[in-house]
Amino acid sequence: MELRDLIQSEIERYNKDFKIMEKDIVLKPQDVARYIDHTILKATTTPEDIKRICKEAKEYEFFSVCVNPVYVPLAKEELKGSDVKVATVIGFPLGANAIDVKAYETDIALNDGADEFDMVINVGMLKSKEYKYVYDEIKAVVEAAQGKTVKVIIETCYLTTEEKIAACVISKEAGAHFVKTSTGFGTGGATVEDVALMKFVVGNKLKVKASGGVRSFEDAEKMIKAGAERIGASSGVKIVSGEKSESDY
Amino acid sequence: MELRDLIQSEIERYNKDFKIMEKDIVLKPQDVARYIDHTILKATTTPEDIKRICKEAKEYEFFSVCVNPVYVPLAKEELKGSDVKVATVIGFPLGANAIDVKAYETDIALNDGADEFDMVINVGMLKSKEYKYVYDEIKAVVEAAQGKTVKVIIETCYLTTEEKIAACVISKEAGAHFVKTSTGFGTGGATVEDVALMKFVVGNKLKVKASGGVRSFEDAEKMIKAGAERIGASSGVKIVSGEKSESDY
Repeated sequence: MELRDLIQSEIERYNKDFKIMEKDIVLKPQDVARYIDHTILKATTTPEDIKRICKEAKEYEFFSVCVNPVYVPLAKEELKGSDVKVATVIGFPLGANAIDVKAYETDIALNDGADEFDMVINVGMLKSKEYKYVYDEIKAVVEAAQGKTVKVIIETCYLTTEEKIAACVISKEAGAHFVKTSTGFGTGGATVEDVALMKFVVGNKLKVKASGGVRSFEDAEKMIKAGAERIGASSGVKIVSGEKSESDY
Repeated sequence: MELRDLIQSEIERYNKDFKIMEKDIVLKPQDVARYIDHTILKATTTPEDIKRICKEAKEYEFFSVCVNPVYVPLAKEELKGSDVKVATVIGFPLGANAIDVKAYETDIALNDGADEFDMVINVGMLKSKEYKYVYDEIKAVVEAAQGKTVKVIIETCYLTTEEKIAACVISKEAGAHFVKTSTGFGTGGATVEDVALMKFVVGNKLKVKASGGVRSFEDAEKMIKAGAERIGASSGVKIVSGEKSESDY
């Protein structure tokens, strides 16, 4: 089936059947650690910052650290001998790079030791219904990642319901492993409704990562109950300690 | 001389001699057109937006359009037969990509027809005083640009006075053509004081581009009088019409 038809049929299924479900699980703050991509992606991030978050990730047993591509080699080195993965970002945060550049950035980061790749789609192309273009760029990153985990950041804050559904359908068709709500650099972050919508569309084939504005254990718990299987946050230490953070990401 | 010594000597010269000069020129709104990089760099920018700004750039005779790399081929096509240049951005807006990726992005954009390259430095590396790193990344982009104009975005809002001076010295040594204040995605834009500082450090060898928050003819006039020879703005049409814009860039 054509992408356009698949998207249309998912929109119809959503209009007919969608409701927000709440997973019936009991979580304590420390249970959330294994969901967390411990994240630092600021323009001003220094090598010292990277060393600190790697130390924290080992201490609290987070799933990964998520760092800008330039810091992948350092994070890999700092995490040697631990189970903590290195995630990085591709075409981040605007997603408006050429497809070849996204693929090349993935390739370099893979060689540098990255385990996971959080790529941003070209939001403008999605909005122009250039679905094949968005498919091609996701596919190019999936191929460059050579079987490693690719998360597709759809930047929900800028999308209509129909566009969110389209982005999830395309991510699934292109072979990605996760859909992810937000960069943390847009006008909004993860919401329970968006996480539930994304899980509804991708089903069990892909996972959902909630990111942007997840600052407390309560926030993380809500996202996980709505269907998130990964949390991107700069406030991981506060989340697993049951405290509340003031950070934006 | 070593970069570190050059920077130190410029800091001393600044502390001794710097004052804000005001160029004695008379400008009318329409005179500003030839200074303007007509800019649209949002995540949500569509091909239709690009067509519109290219049309405006031709009508108002702006110096260039400044677009994300994915839209360089389209802008080139839309501007065929006109004098309006195509500028694009490299490692934008965080500057935290690997050096090879910045060089490759430049290479692809050059092949796509870009005339000018506005690259973002790795701010965190600058803050860690990794001057050789910042030199190497600027040099790599300058080489990839094969003689075309390279503007170095130093993202002044995050920098101390000493760091601003260091970034200007390094840009000059690495062979760039402009230093540029801001991405428009940081916590602040161009100021008269920063433009004057940058012009003081780079002298006549490089030019200064003021960008971020330049919304009116009065703003643009102040920047030009402080030493800017290019203005990056999304409000070019309002600037040359003598109106005020509400946009952030």
